[in-house]
Amino acid sequence: MDAPFRIEHDFLGEKEIPNTVYYGVQTLRALENFNITGITNASEPLFIQAFAYVKKAAAMANRDLGVLDPKLAEAILFACDELIAGKYHDQFVTDLIQGGAGTSVNMNANEVIANIGLEYLGHQKGEYDILHPNNHVNFSQSTNDTYPTALMLAIHLKMDAYIKALADLRKSFLRKSKKFDRVLKMGRTQLQDAVPMTLGQEFHAFATTVNDDVLRLREAQRKLTECNMGATAIGTSINAPAGYPELCTRYLAEITGFPMVLAPDLVEATSDMGTYLHVSAMLKRSAIKISKICNDLRLLSSGPRTGLNEIKLPAMQPGSSIMPGKVNPVIPEVVNQTAFYVIGADVTISMAAEAGQLQLNVMEPVIAFSLFTSLNYMTRAINTLRVKCVDGITANTEISKEMVMHSVGIVTALNPILGYETCASIAKEALATGKSIHQIVVVERKLLDHLKWDEIYSFENMIHPVFINS
Amino acid sequence: MDAPFRIEHDFLGEKEIPNTVYYGVQTLRALENFNITGITNASEPLFIQAFAYVKKAAAMANRDLGVLDPKLAEAILFACDELIAGKYHDQFVTDLIQGGAGTSVNMNANEVIANIGLEYLGHQKGEYDILHPNNHVNFSQSTNDTYPTALMLAIHLKMDAYIKALADLRKSFLRKSKKFDRVLKMGRTQLQDAVPMTLGQEFHAFATTVNDDVLRLREAQRKLTECNMGATAIGTSINAPAGYPELCTRYLAEITGFPMVLAPDLVEATSDMGTYLHVSAMLKRSAIKISKICNDLRLLSSGPRTGLNEIKLPAMQPGSSIMPGKVNPVIPEVVNQTAFYVIGADVTISMAAEAGQLQLNVMEPVIAFSLFTSLNYMTRAINTLRVKCVDGITANTEISKEMVMHSVGIVTALNPILGYETCASIAKEALATGKSIHQIVVVERKLLDHLKWDEIYSFENMIHPVFINS
Amino acid sequence: MDAPFRIEHDFLGEKEIPNTVYYGVQTLRALENFNITGITNASEPLFIQAFAYVKKAAAMANRDLGVLDPKLAEAILFACDELIAGKYHDQFVTDLIQGGAGTSVNMNANEVIANIGLEYLGHQKGEYDILHPNNHVNFSQSTNDTYPTALMLAIHLKMDAYIKALADLRKSFLRKSKKFDRVLKMGRTQLQDAVPMTLGQEFHAFATTVNDDVLRLREAQRKLTECNMGATAIGTSINAPAGYPELCTRYLAEITGFPMVLAPDLVEATSDMGTYLHVSAMLKRSAIKISKICNDLRLLSSGPRTGLNEIKLPAMQPGSSIMPGKVNPVIPEVVNQTAFYVIGADVTISMAAEAGQLQLNVMEPVIAFSLFTSLNYMTRAINTLRVKCVDGITANTEISKEMVMHSVGIVTALNPILGYETCASIAKEALATGKSIHQIVVVERKLLDHLKWDEIYSFENMIHPVFINS
Amino acid sequence: MDAPFRIEHDFLGEKEIPNTVYYGVQTLRALENFNITGITNASEPLFIQAFAYVKKAAAMANRDLGVLDPKLAEAILFACDELIAGKYHDQFVTDLIQGGAGTSVNMNANEVIANIGLEYLGHQKGEYDILHPNNHVNFSQSTNDTYPTALMLAIHLKMDAYIKALADLRKSFLRKSKKFDRVLKMGRTQLQDAVPMTLGQEFHAFATTVNDDVLRLREAQRKLTECNMGATAIGTSINAPAGYPELCTRYLAEITGFPMVLAPDLVEATSDMGTYLHVSAMLKRSAIKISKICNDLRLLSSGPRTGLNEIKLPAMQPGSSIMPGKVNPVIPEVVNQTAFYVIGADVTISMAAEAGQLQLNVMEPVIAFSLFTSLNYMTRAINTLRVKCVDGITANTEISKEMVMHSVGIVTALNPILGYETCASIAKEALATGKSIHQIVVVERKLLDHLKWDEIYSFENMIHPVFINS
Repeated sequence: MDAPFRIEHDFLGEKEIPNTVYYGVQTLRALENFNITGITNASEPLFIQAFAYVKKAAAMANRDLGVLDPKLAEAILFACDELIAGKYHDQFVTDLIQGGAGTSVNMNANEVIANIGLEYLGHQKGEYDILHPNNHVNFSQSTNDTYPTALMLAIHLKMDAYIKALADLRKSFLRKSKKFDRVLKMGRTQLQDAVPMTLGQEFHAFATTVNDDVLRLREAQRKLTECNMGATAIGTSINAPAGYPELCTRYLAEITGFPMVLAPDLVEATSDMGTYLHVSAMLKRSAIKISKICNDLRLLSSGPRTGLNEIKLPAMQPGSSIMPGKVNPVIPEVVNQTAFYVIGADVTISMAAEAGQLQLNVMEPVIAFSLFTSLNYMTRAINTLRVKCVDGITANTEISKEMVMHSVGIVTALNPILGYETCASIAKEALATGKSIHQIVVVERKLLDHLKWDEIYSFENMIHPVFINS
Repeated sequence: MDAPFRIEHDFLGEKEIPNTVYYGVQTLRALENFNITGITNASEPLFIQAFAYVKKAAAMANRDLGVLDPKLAEAILFACDELIAGKYHDQFVTDLIQGGAGTSVNMNANEVIANIGLEYLGHQKGEYDILHPNNHVNFSQSTNDTYPTALMLAIHLKMDAYIKALADLRKSFLRKSKKFDRVLKMGRTQLQDAVPMTLGQEFHAFATTVNDDVLRLREAQRKLTECNMGATAIGTSINAPAGYPELCTRYLAEITGFPMVLAPDLVEATSDMGTYLHVSAMLKRSAIKISKICNDLRLLSSGPRTGLNEIKLPAMQPGSSIMPGKVNPVIPEVVNQTAFYVIGADVTISMAAEAGQLQLNVMEPVIAFSLFTSLNYMTRAINTLRVKCVDGITANTEISKEMVMHSVGIVTALNPILGYETCASIAKEALATGKSIHQIVVVERKLLDHLKWDEIYSFENMIHPVFINS
Repeated sequence: MDAPFRIEHDFLGEKEIPNTVYYGVQTLRALENFNITGITNASEPLFIQAFAYVKKAAAMANRDLGVLDPKLAEAILFACDELIAGKYHDQFVTDLIQGGAGTSVNMNANEVIANIGLEYLGHQKGEYDILHPNNHVNFSQSTNDTYPTALMLAIHLKMDAYIKALADLRKSFLRKSKKFDRVLKMGRTQLQDAVPMTLGQEFHAFATTVNDDVLRLREAQRKLTECNMGATAIGTSINAPAGYPELCTRYLAEITGFPMVLAPDLVEATSDMGTYLHVSAMLKRSAIKISKICNDLRLLSSGPRTGLNEIKLPAMQPGSSIMPGKVNPVIPEVVNQTAFYVIGADVTISMAAEAGQLQLNVMEPVIAFSLFTSLNYMTRAINTLRVKCVDGITANTEISKEMVMHSVGIVTALNPILGYETCASIAKEALATGKSIHQIVVVERKLLDHLKWDEIYSFENMIHPVFINS
Repeated sequence: MDAPFRIEHDFLGEKEIPNTVYYGVQTLRALENFNITGITNASEPLFIQAFAYVKKAAAMANRDLGVLDPKLAEAILFACDELIAGKYHDQFVTDLIQGGAGTSVNMNANEVIANIGLEYLGHQKGEYDILHPNNHVNFSQSTNDTYPTALMLAIHLKMDAYIKALADLRKSFLRKSKKFDRVLKMGRTQLQDAVPMTLGQEFHAFATTVNDDVLRLREAQRKLTECNMGATAIGTSINAPAGYPELCTRYLAEITGFPMVLAPDLVEATSDMGTYLHVSAMLKRSAIKISKICNDLRLLSSGPRTGLNEIKLPAMQPGSSIMPGKVNPVIPEVVNQTAFYVIGADVTISMAAEAGQLQLNVMEPVIAFSLFTSLNYMTRAINTLRVKCVDGITANTEISKEMVMHSVGIVTALNPILGYETCASIAKEALATGKSIHQIVVVERKLLDHLKWDEIYSFENMIHPVFINS
């Protein structure tokens, strides 16, 4: 009968490992050492997949360069493909936030790959003299090149989902923009009545601004394809055979389909956090802009009786345990909160990046954690916003139009004809008396006749004002 | 045979609810609407327990005031006690970050309590005409008073664990402080050699600073006992019978054992986030100070051959996948990262607090999420730091002492005797030539005899310098 | 004829000092080294005054303990009194943000005091063999105790002005609260119509919340009276005579009138930034809450025709270079922005506090800078808010009341009589048809008679709802 | 005799304006309203210059389109050229942080230009019926297009100086890198001894990372050339003649030499803060990376006797008021603090950007303030770092080399030959006994002969390790 445990050792001593698991002694130590968030690397399948890409490329390069037995390379490749196929992910048991700059994740990958490979070769788990986590799987590598490379690949992959969510949201805004292109409404600056516009123009601006984020995020994404494979411990390529960095990078490009390039200064690349800062900044930027849009949606749908009430958001749930009939803008609200999370996470990342010392930044795992959660939360938030809110927004067309014609702000259109000072006096009278601009200008002061008024205040002219000189 | 589903409705329509679950239609809608973090309220048992305290106190007050049938009150109390006992927590299925200012959590509690109570009364789940989530369980209440009250209680309870972790850590530092009270070492300011001290003094300072956090956190905790029960929707106590706010608060004090008081201005209390800001600030303060301590531990244990190497941290795991024998300060590292999380979360909380509008702050759930996770992570981090690092720290006594006597900084002790300018010239010569201070002062310049030197540079005098005038 | 320059030296060499200035060689070096903000210590008279308090207390203690010639002490005291009287402040020329942990400010004080003292003694500036910046003025002191002590005193003094500004603002809100106590308005949660309240209640909540900040800031202020005088370089009191720390603290209490106490652990006190973190947190807390109030003021005064328009802020300036008659809420706007500054500054302070290393935090000057500017800006912002906005706010009483009676939210008052579900159906009908609640309840469904309606919807009952059971 | 005052009015009433000043009534109101930072727009000459570019381009377009009398246009152009030449800047008296979204700065520009223009035309200041600040100078414009356009131009211009400072710093690092290319030193990860490298490689990494910031900042700069001229109030181009937006943009490109383009969606461009967020993010990124470098410089120069002491920073000033001979790394310290300021300012900017509402972001002035101060402070900090620190750094070559050969980390080079596990056991023995690796490997265990040892541990091989298989 099989023993329930195998004994593994590292230079700190021996540990019993349950025979059912594919990870080994170093993973077990990390499991015991790090218990902070309860969120494990297993929750990030793309990260595990990315690690498998990296290990596979390294094994292929090692094999080609003659420093790794082709049979062992074959076993490693088999194991990597299993991970890429989504298997064994539950073996990645360490906490996302961990000390050691990712060593425990890298060793976890090395150990799991070694043990899958050992079984592939007809051996038992733990027979590391045949296939060793460090000597074979990690050959020519260090945590300090594999961890950041896998992390960058994972972020790249995760950003795809986020960018798609934004692109879809943009399309929704564009559709609404077309739908609302004849809905006249008051533009507002500083929450004060300004000049007319259409609701279509407002939603078009939402689409435009989201699109700009898509572009900026894609730019940020491109920086993630610069890797430091072959840097090994500190960028001097110690323990890596000549040609390995370039070959490994080439294989990584082939496997992932990404245009991977080798960083020009491996020492710099090994400690630099600039790429994560860039990604976080662009992610934060989009979160801030989305949060502003959500604030606008909540403002525009405020009321219904004592607010702006220009639009109606789809009712998603009763809004109160006490106030009957109350419906709240719960979807924009949850998106705002997600954006606040992302903005806070950017501060976490900033501090972690600043805390790097000398040849490494040991705070990388909290950067990984922060980017992973921020991307997860925001992607879900954006999709929620689109499906459960934006797609169902309707316009209160009549109310909006009435507010425009009742406003004082429409006097601005008369500036070029009557001059700023006359217009200011008209506005002042309107505000003091409650009269409409039409009443003062056409009926009382007779500064314009009805025809001219109608020309200026036609829908077309209010939306795309043709400059009408006196 | 029982139907697998029951039909429930709210004013948005009907939904099928699996008959096995105790939550109802409004919880189900929230489940569909909010999918951001994947972390549910069920993960915070103290929050559910706190909600049960609140609902129980409310039912008791309602019963006493004659607005709730005693039999229904009894059923509600039974249900609350079940929740307090830790049962049915898996029914709290909504995401911690949610829109609606907590309405979904409150309704989740109302629904679960109603259905447990219905079964207690011999009825089927969903027979709300007998015991209704809103009309009975939520009587005299609103999300806007129950949610913040439960949240404050939960934070209070969670802070106990955090404060205990800090107090334990303080004791560990104190123990080490006594152990190291004869270990002479160089004090450093601005990373430059300053004047001598003991390692015991250094660790005593760690104990002192942690203790100060304990005191500040307890102060912050006290503010959490001011509740707004009876405020209902916006603080005007609409729908609550006279005397209810006071009575409910009294019952809450009785049930929890906390010195609960009613907020003096219920309108203010219903929208104000000041207490959370206070808690977050003190939590952040402690995280910053712990992070500084961890930085120091990493600095002091740096090396071992090319660093300061004054102390040795317990070896927790191999430190590198490539560098044999390397052991890293992984425990302080993970604590640093946790502190960065907390500092970022404080920004999230700040933004959420600032985003409140008019009579409510709808961003409260992200504040709850941020405080919950920050407290969870930091409590675990502090306990990890104590058990897996501080308790096992040892001093490199000889190395430390040698560094002191070899230093230039010890010339400072001669200031009162030789004057600042002479000392500066001695220091300058030492730095330029590599000579020791003793060599220059005693042997070459003969400014002091050996006796005086030994008096000044005795261990006692270096640690508690007696002022020796010339 | 007098030479235009004198020669001074330190251990780095000699420098020419213009004979007109009272600072010396070390100040001059700092002037050359640090040119970041262009804002000098001279811009903070209370900081210079605080430094003079510290230097005076130290000289008195040194004199009493027999380590400072009484004649020299007299000269130092004279110089300190001159600084306290506001003279020679222009001699404090170094940038607020500086390297060296405040050494340059301390040496600036030492040099200026020495030279004023030398003239008092009938000597020339620079005759340091008589009265020396280090050997006499700085006796028993270090930058590491004088700088933080002076800083804490300065912040304490500056906080008085800020707390007064808040207390005055609170009184203004209270006055408005009384003035508006009969102004019925709609309460809003999540920007959606909730239930009625008065504008007086709303402004009372503003007063309450500001008052709470006053209390929290006073608590924070108290921590500033714990000083580390006598700690000297790193807290071991090297170079200070026995009894000096206590005596100096006692003199400091006498001079300032503050209840100064000596920190119980001088090593801890010398590197700890906890007090600044506390002050910054409470300052930020108040800024966040004031920003929320300003957001509310801008919302409530939005329109005037297409917004909430419940209140009117005083018109301070034309609001647009193009839109005639537009008046913007410019005062709340500038206060919001100031609050954002303070929130950002708290992050700066957090990072600086975390960056302390071993026996000192060298980042203290940026903490000083951030607290000084935050307090200056917020004090001015709060006073501006009171005088130029709050004191002139008027209510649009009729508009507010109409909105209430036209709202759907008032149906909540019928919950205890008709039950939540009936009320929800009434609300639903009102929202769908645009009918008023009165129309549906009294006229159409005849659920209440006119008398009951009038009782429930009387002003008194809407504001302080008496619970009316069916 | 001339009256000392002239009377100006706006729609709020009349004010006396001193006849000596070129600004008018609206500027005066802003001067009275906003008193927060004490830092005026006059302190930013490039911002005033940028405003003049904008006003000039607008006047040229208006003239060409026939809506502005050529004689008046000539006067406006004259006034703009005066401002561009640096004259009248003292007339820009309003506080950088102001309410009104920049209206007061725009009106200040309009008034000053009008009055300069009036004198040019032979009129008196204040004769606005001839040349009016709103009707003529501001024709076809609004604060909401001129202010952001001028702000972006100013930031663009200011970034040139910052980028130059970084590029110069990079060159200094490169020079040092070459100088230090034979200085062997220990690489460190996680503050623990890792593997050898050269000091040249370390400084080369600094150069590389700074260069990457230069590239990212240039990318960010390019976004600043997209303007919204002609958007007027909210992006609908109300009051602007057809063709004006394009023509004005073309003139702006011509005047500035920048590749200005018109934003494709003027509604979006008028409220969007994305460009500032991008600039702030890249500025923060560079500050974080520079701060990390400064941390490294402080670490590497720590000691001199009880620290790493690998490099020596130039001595800039005595480091202590009490410890003779102490010299501190004051320049990196001041740079760290400046970086913390910038990181805090990014939070301020984030909050301001998020707070935009509907068609405008009224918080733009605090964004301007934050970017201006951050750029000013960081530019000065970087130049200070280069001139007063980096250029004077020297290497402690012998000490560095000794530390390497004495280290345990060099065993890593034996991995490919002896395997990870044997190397780990060698390392363990070295750490336990204090023996050198050479002693264990060559002398005692005889695992390598001297020749092989020398080959592996030759300078060349340690720096650019050739992979040596067993």
